[in-house]
Amino acid sequence: MRGIIPQKIKGFRDIDPQLNNLRHHVIAKASKVYKNYGFEHWDTPALEYADCLGKYMPDDDSVDQGVYSFRNPEIEPIHDEKGNRMVDEEGNFLMENHFLSLRYDLTAPLSRLYAEKLWTPAVRNNPNNFRPSLFRRYQYGPVYRFETKLDPGRFREFWQLDFDTVGTSDISADAETAMVLSDALEAIGLKRDTYRVKINNRKVLKGFLVGLGLTDESLEQSVLRIVDKADKIGQDGMMLELGRGRKDISGAIIPGLGLEQSVISSIVDFLHGFSSAARKNILASLSNSKFMNPVFEEGLKELAGIDELLAQLGYEEDRVIFEPSLVRGMAYYTGPVFEVESLQSFIDEKGLERRVGSICGGGRYDGLVSRLLGLSVPAVGASIGVDRLCELLVQTKSLELDYSGPVIVLVFDTAMMTEYQKIAQELRASDIAVEVYYGMQKNLKKQMAYADQSRCSVAVLVGEDELKKGVVTLRNLKLGAELAATIADKNEWKEKVQIEVPRGEMVQKVKEMLSL
Amino acid sequence: MRGIIPQKIKGFRDIDPQLNNLRHHVIAKASKVYKNYGFEHWDTPALEYADCLGKYMPDDDSVDQGVYSFRNPEIEPIHDEKGNRMVDEEGNFLMENHFLSLRYDLTAPLSRLYAEKLWTPAVRNNPNNFRPSLFRRYQYGPVYRFETKLDPGRFREFWQLDFDTVGTSDISADAETAMVLSDALEAIGLKRDTYRVKINNRKVLKGFLVGLGLTDESLEQSVLRIVDKADKIGQDGMMLELGRGRKDISGAIIPGLGLEQSVISSIVDFLHGFSSAARKNILASLSNSKFMNPVFEEGLKELAGIDELLAQLGYEEDRVIFEPSLVRGMAYYTGPVFEVESLQSFIDEKGLERRVGSICGGGRYDGLVSRLLGLSVPAVGASIGVDRLCELLVQTKSLELDYSGPVIVLVFDTAMMTEYQKIAQELRASDIAVEVYYGMQKNLKKQMAYADQSRCSVAVLVGEDELKKGVVTLRNLKLGAELAATIADKNEWKEKVQIEVPRGEMVQKVKEMLSL
Repeated sequence: MRGIIPQKIKGFRDIDPQLNNLRHHVIAKASKVYKNYGFEHWDTPALEYADCLGKYMPDDDSVDQGVYSFRNPEIEPIHDEKGNRMVDEEGNFLMENHFLSLRYDLTAPLSRLYAEKLWTPAVRNNPNNFRPSLFRRYQYGPVYRFETKLDPGRFREFWQLDFDTVGTSDISADAETAMVLSDALEAIGLKRDTYRVKINNRKVLKGFLVGLGLTDESLEQSVLRIVDKADKIGQDGMMLELGRGRKDISGAIIPGLGLEQSVISSIVDFLHGFSSAARKNILASLSNSKFMNPVFEEGLKELAGIDELLAQLGYEEDRVIFEPSLVRGMAYYTGPVFEVESLQSFIDEKGLERRVGSICGGGRYDGLVSRLLGLSVPAVGASIGVDRLCELLVQTKSLELDYSGPVIVLVFDTAMMTEYQKIAQELRASDIAVEVYYGMQKNLKKQMAYADQSRCSVAVLVGEDELKKGVVTLRNLKLGAELAATIADKNEWKEKVQIEVPRGEMVQKVKEMLSL
Repeated sequence: MRGIIPQKIKGFRDIDPQLNNLRHHVIAKASKVYKNYGFEHWDTPALEYADCLGKYMPDDDSVDQGVYSFRNPEIEPIHDEKGNRMVDEEGNFLMENHFLSLRYDLTAPLSRLYAEKLWTPAVRNNPNNFRPSLFRRYQYGPVYRFETKLDPGRFREFWQLDFDTVGTSDISADAETAMVLSDALEAIGLKRDTYRVKINNRKVLKGFLVGLGLTDESLEQSVLRIVDKADKIGQDGMMLELGRGRKDISGAIIPGLGLEQSVISSIVDFLHGFSSAARKNILASLSNSKFMNPVFEEGLKELAGIDELLAQLGYEEDRVIFEPSLVRGMAYYTGPVFEVESLQSFIDEKGLERRVGSICGGGRYDGLVSRLLGLSVPAVGASIGVDRLCELLVQTKSLELDYSGPVIVLVFDTAMMTEYQKIAQELRASDIAVEVYYGMQKNLKKQMAYADQSRCSVAVLVGEDELKKGVVTLRNLKLGAELAATIADKNEWKEKVQIEVPRGEMVQKVKEMLSL
């Protein structure tokens, strides 16, 4: 007989109260910064028509399989490009169970949202009259990727926290993207100089490749995908994949692009040939490049504009740098791209020094809305990888949030349940979190074990004697745990952490124990 | 050529900033109450193995089709009931792409979470040594149902906010469920006496049906499903479906259960034959029932215990009532069931008086975890229908949250962008939300239209002259909108809502306009 195993799907996970507390600290602090820059909180469904989201996943050999997709159980009409229902040769409407996808990011749904608002017959039929309206939103929530390889710290469901400005090509919005990321991370609790916001421009990369003679669009995308994974496969791996190909660890053959050695050398020189990290110096080096051409020049001018504004507003190289080798995986980026790298390392469970790598990413995607609307709509934005950032904060112990469980009222006699409930009600009236112990194992040891496991702060103990005397016994569990390490004598320990107080003073004493 | 229509899936929706603000007000206020009762915040994935969630959907003729399910793209082993991998006749491991489902509620995933923690070989092999541990959590997030009929206010993605106590059969936890619901709704902003927490007990219903001679389990479920939808189909419809069947509006034939008329009359009498709404009176009537039997009696005793505790703690009939006709749709309930009904009505867009109906539901489900664990684990909990409650608050205007957009810095000259950015930075340093206008349409009218649409509170206007004079012009947009109704003269209006202040006083003046 087939059985049911109670388990999560591989790559998915449950979030416990401490991690949830941290996750929502990150979301609250960053959202406040987003709001302060004028972004407003929108939400979109987790499930969308697959064709609305498109396919822009970063390279991991799973461009087509990286998304959870399935057929809509509902059958619906098929439309042509003008939005009219399609018919077959006999004039019957064509119908289909469309493909649905769990969103793989929050940018593609934003593009759908924006396009849907504007996708009116008036706009469709008079594209020349159209000027895109401005739209600024932030959004957070889970996104889904069917990752075939689940490295440590990688999940198939993870949270992102995005902000985007749609409807402008103003480079100030790009500079602002770097500022928002920096401000948000510091509001969350990252120290200055423990992270870098890195900026590059796809136009510079594209211009450079054109200058090298690589003008084919699909070849360009292939080169960028390989450059993007240089972090993973190393510079040698990158050079091999640009050239004759290589074998990976499993022995599988990864074919190369077959570029000439001189071209590969030029690429390596360009990506890593900068002698100084100062933004001004990188701009100067780039402007002297022998590969200069109009696209390259446009990208360079944008970077210069971004640098100018950042400098004027005090965002120096201890926060924002230029990184000429930065690509960012998503295929929809068209201009400036952003990434935040944490500079902190930590020792993992296996005793190895590790970094979490990129904690934010973003860029300009001037083609993403256009694809749905047939009209040009420039846009720029970025995303905090909430779960990756939480892992960083946990592993580096950068942020210790105080997270206590409730006060617990122990149950010695179920006949006294009403009394226990009244005690809880009294404490709650003073906004103190309290639970009454409902467990089926009533001995004191089991109740205390449950209190420990729930990180309860204070235990309220009332037996028949206490009830008659009109008192309650309070045990400070937090202090108790601390003192347990230094005080061996049980009675001495009890004296310090446990007091008997008149019922009328209970609320005040509990508040003192909780330091409220 | 096939086109892409930018649109959401039918039954899904985007949430705008105002509604999002309301939704998160509801979540924050209720979560605080849940926490104060000692529930802790856990999260589980939106996607689960279909067999872990099981099939417990309420009746809407779509018990099998009500869930979004699809095959896992990953192939995985099949296990037997003991958790061992299954093999075919030749000894090869059996593999399969398991069915995955988007969660249809938060209770089934909670059961999986609890069972997964305990599903160890030690527990599986020694069920006699097992005493369930106590587990109390709250959780919120979207759930998914493939509703075939989309009535107004019904969605395929909607948010729930659950709290549950797993591992106890203590009836105090059931009484507490009603208390938490009442406290949470009042914390959100519902006025006393505008809602009722309704309680019934499935054991009383089951006992009554047994007393009537309806002992077949599947017949019992069928009767309860029909009784549950009496609200929708009316009492006549219910009686017909219990008897010879009926035709629905579309003319489709709905077969009946074929019960005898006397049995149907007894059911109707039992459900609606109570002369008083007082809990004590209902208990008295029930205890005199001629259908009394052990199951009935057990249910009655539980209701009496719940009443006792509620009365002692001051939860009277203006908050919590007994409702002998209450069933609740989910098939997993085994004991007390809960529902909250809003008593408020409102006039909808079509001019019709409407109610939102049930805004919370819950109950005891002692079999749900057992199904996954093979061990008895009693549990009770309830859920606030967040989106239904938000609709109620919006439609009845019970709660007017102040939700303003940011201050906006208008852009008259892009050459002055650095200056505009510095103004924004200065205001943000005082924790004021500000955006700089990045739209591509720069004329004043378009900028003001955008500010209106974004509900901006204050506009900062700086041209070349102001910059030279060291001043800024501030326009109070909120006051402006209010005065526009009463002041016709443009100059008089401007005088009231617009001031020029020295740059050094800008922050203070903006704060005054925002009443900070």
